[in-house]
Amino acid sequence: MRMKLALVAASTLCASMSVMAAEPVQPIYAATIEDRDKVELGKMLFFDPRLSQSGFISCNSCHNLSMGGSDNLPTSIGHDWQLGPINSPTVLNSKFNIAQFWDGRAATLQEQAGGPIANPGEMAFTHQLALSTLETIPGYVKMFEKVYGDEVITIDEVTDAIAVFEETLVTPGAPFDRSLMGDENAISMQAKAGYELFKTVGCTACHNGQALGGSSFQKMGLVKPYETDSEVAGRSAVTGNEIDRFSFKVPTLRNIELTYPYFHDGAVWDLGEAVNIMGEIQLGRTFKPEETDQIVAFLTTLTGQQPTFDLPILPPSSAKTPKPQP
Amino acid sequence: MRMKLALVAASTLCASMSVMAAEPVQPIYAATIEDRDKVELGKMLFFDPRLSQSGFISCNSCHNLSMGGSDNLPTSIGHDWQLGPINSPTVLNSKFNIAQFWDGRAATLQEQAGGPIANPGEMAFTHQLALSTLETIPGYVKMFEKVYGDEVITIDEVTDAIAVFEETLVTPGAPFDRSLMGDENAISMQAKAGYELFKTVGCTACHNGQALGGSSFQKMGLVKPYETDSEVAGRSAVTGNEIDRFSFKVPTLRNIELTYPYFHDGAVWDLGEAVNIMGEIQLGRTFKPEETDQIVAFLTTLTGQQPTFDLPILPPSSAKTPKPQP
Repeated sequence: MRMKLALVAASTLCASMSVMAAEPVQPIYAATIEDRDKVELGKMLFFDPRLSQSGFISCNSCHNLSMGGSDNLPTSIGHDWQLGPINSPTVLNSKFNIAQFWDGRAATLQEQAGGPIANPGEMAFTHQLALSTLETIPGYVKMFEKVYGDEVITIDEVTDAIAVFEETLVTPGAPFDRSLMGDENAISMQAKAGYELFKTVGCTACHNGQALGGSSFQKMGLVKPYETDSEVAGRSAVTGNEIDRFSFKVPTLRNIELTYPYFHDGAVWDLGEAVNIMGEIQLGRTFKPEETDQIVAFLTTLTGQQPTFDLPILPPSSAKTPKPQP
Repeated sequence: MRMKLALVAASTLCASMSVMAAEPVQPIYAATIEDRDKVELGKMLFFDPRLSQSGFISCNSCHNLSMGGSDNLPTSIGHDWQLGPINSPTVLNSKFNIAQFWDGRAATLQEQAGGPIANPGEMAFTHQLALSTLETIPGYVKMFEKVYGDEVITIDEVTDAIAVFEETLVTPGAPFDRSLMGDENAISMQAKAGYELFKTVGCTACHNGQALGGSSFQKMGLVKPYETDSEVAGRSAVTGNEIDRFSFKVPTLRNIELTYPYFHDGAVWDLGEAVNIMGEIQLGRTFKPEETDQIVAFLTTLTGQQPTFDLPILPPSSAKTPKPQP
């Protein structure tokens, strides 16, 4: 009897797995942590405002893990209250991206992590000053030695630890994933209809895979131009090819209800409005109100379990630590 | 045998308790949490930047619980990168203060909590906009209803929840407290000598009680004037009495190694230098280098267990929520 049940369960699982394999969207699974000390170190660095010139801005300032890994602002606030040129992308599930930043100018999370630290409009520090800061904080020296084997701290170690922490920031358990895995009651009929529509109209051409995005660069305004005040060039700034102008990495739709406002210019606050604009400019399709509602209902089933962990306690500076310069 | 041991333990406890009663400093005990939901709500509000005009500054920005409940800046950074007039006091153990703010202008933690939200140089919001924000966030409405019994959110509830969370932010378990409770090996001989000196020269006249401070207002510069560029008047701004000029609430010395830079103007980064200045201007005493070292050794035994808790996950805004205005 027990074996029979197990067989039934296994065949159900196989059935749902083969269904899953046929779907353009795959579920996200919990992160496996291999090096707990490194993740802990990376988490501390992620929350440490001493990696900025002012001593006030940390990675978490703009990729706020209380707020879907974003700052919920059109564009981010940087050093000296400079308003950045582009919307802060969520750090959640960023490990699934083919490259980092909207224009993909960093190949890896590690490469990305060094960017904002030295960006004069963001943390406005230098890698050398970041190292001088960490080297003079005994608590950090001890942790780096434990994780990397010696007392000399390098920028590659700093960005590696941050990246390894960021790789743990995945959001499994979304209602949609439970639905994909066979739980028929995990999402509403409206959301199911939304998912079908999402597939049939072609959203999944770009928004696919585990992250429903992040796997390609696409032009913003394929069918009709996108109207924006933003002067950001997009992918062409990286490739130098005019054809890549206004091409951006497709953003993930995971946790999309938490990561407003939308688009690279952060111009749209309402998810339904964002869906309608996408329909118009990417697919040349005007959604009926009930269709928009269905797609929005589907999108809100993509909110997964947010990473939870203890707020890190940071080791104090020493007399030799460079002073913050607000 | 077991009873004999218990009796010995009890008599040791009584002996150390009577010693403790005679000391000008008392240990801190872990917080007892009566209303877990209210503490959780207060924690969320404490971390929520949507209580600021910009959507970027939360209570935790300047009272950073990763950094001893302070921002480790001379004076805090507020809305539009305004540099405040005064050093951000630690929120840790602030429940022991007779009043809040350096000048004691708020009688309670609850009264304090409303201040920075509406201060144009800090969070630059209004209480009305803070309420409009919270009222339009369904996740908050639900929590306020659970904690306060109805859906209408008042500013008194907001500040009450923040204050009740702040009351939990105590730091028990400091080596010095373990020493007070009878563990003779909890602190070094140097620290013990430092504590004796701390008492005999008169530091405990002001730095006493559980928080080693926070129980009185005292003039900064009792014996010699304190040299500062700060124009902050201190207690006289509250009382209107000229005699209270440059009088400030005595800051706590708990976790002092984490809450640099020191004094109301945040002008001094080195703890030994701060001790020496205090000796000169408050006691008319020049410490020998070994005396300074002893007192510093004692002060660093006052670092307790920092409050640890999950980083709160904040509920998303709705279409009706006022937009942040960076």
